Amino acid sequence: MNCLEERIAKDGVVKEGNVLKVDSFLNHCMDVSLFKEMGAEWKKRFAGKNINKILTIEASGIGIASVVALEFNVPVVFAKKNKSINIDGDMYVTEVESFTHKNKNQVIVSKRFLNSDDHVLIIDDFLANGCALQGLISIVGQAGATVEGIGIAIEKGFQSGGQIIRNLGYQLESLAIVDSMDAATGTITFREQ
Amino acid sequence: MNCLEERIAKDGVVKEGNVLKVDSFLNHCMDVSLFKEMGAEWKKRFAGKNINKILTIEASGIGIASVVALEFNVPVVFAKKNKSINIDGDMYVTEVESFTHKNKNQVIVSKRFLNSDDHVLIIDDFLANGCALQGLISIVGQAGATVEGIGIAIEKGFQSGGQIIRNLGYQLESLAIVDSMDAATGTITFREQ
Repeated sequence: MNCLEERIAKDGVVKEGNVLKVDSFLNHCMDVSLFKEMGAEWKKRFAGKNINKILTIEASGIGIASVVALEFNVPVVFAKKNKSINIDGDMYVTEVESFTHKNKNQVIVSKRFLNSDDHVLIIDDFLANGCALQGLISIVGQAGATVEGIGIAIEKGFQSGGQIIRNLGYQLESLAIVDSMDAATGTITFREQ
Repeated sequence: MNCLEERIAKDGVVKEGNVLKVDSFLNHCMDVSLFKEMGAEWKKRFAGKNINKILTIEASGIGIASVVALEFNVPVVFAKKNKSINIDGDMYVTEVESFTHKNKNQVIVSKRFLNSDDHVLIIDDFLANGCALQGLISIVGQAGATVEGIGIAIEKGFQSGGQIIRNLGYQLESLAIVDSMDAATGTITFREQ
């Protein structure tokens, strides 16, 4: 098991409705030293890729992406879920449905921060049905930029998001792929990698 | 000038209505190597303080806080603006008004991640009227924890938030204090530190 799988096995909590709570180390309280280890793992998996920018989405992706960006020595752009009065008119826009919050958000990235010269690593905390990820890929496409790879912390392997992205030919590196989990026993089964 | 003041002078854009746009390096596109330098500066300014946790608020605070947390070797907790279905019942709650978005949000932190043993450094990107910061201080108070210090990237010195916090006796370290700015000329005047 890698560092993230070990941590999920130790501190992750399985809830009814296929919810995996990892808020004690990943997306509410954040263990940034774990994020650093995750960054080192992704650096290995994307070795040889010409990555000059990391793209993520607010809010839970930002912490992981920022620490990982230090490993890659590149800036982070995060997609925003609401139009702020402080953002200029020219933006890439896509619509994303949230599994967690059961709502739809317009997601935006300023055109000033992503263009056809960019080679992008997309980073996010969770991949389930893949809506958020598809939105980020759409934004990279709108910019004419290149998706060099996708790094996900936890993929729910029993949902279709990861398979669809791999079918489309992207290099998707999920550090932990959960094949099944059981709220009654608390058991989490990871896919062998 | 320190690293942040230099960067604001170079890349910050002054807009009408006392808006300072720093989205090219601080809160949309994020220069994490700058955040690392900022962390080193706060480490100096809070030397001798017994800090075991960083508290920030989504979304723009998370990137800075995460990189700074690596410098301090502590975890980050970020206050959330909306109640997620994935958060358990027991939470500290406060209400925060946003200057940028002109709305009010309930802000929450799970009681599991902040308690009376904690010695907290609060980190955020902006301080203007101080509403967000007052909310975070309230949450630390509800937990019975101690505010060891407050690190702000950019303080708008012509608004009252910083003065109020200093009057209350907190060690507030703003890396850049903007005393005035002029949208017509683009001039930004920093307070001498």
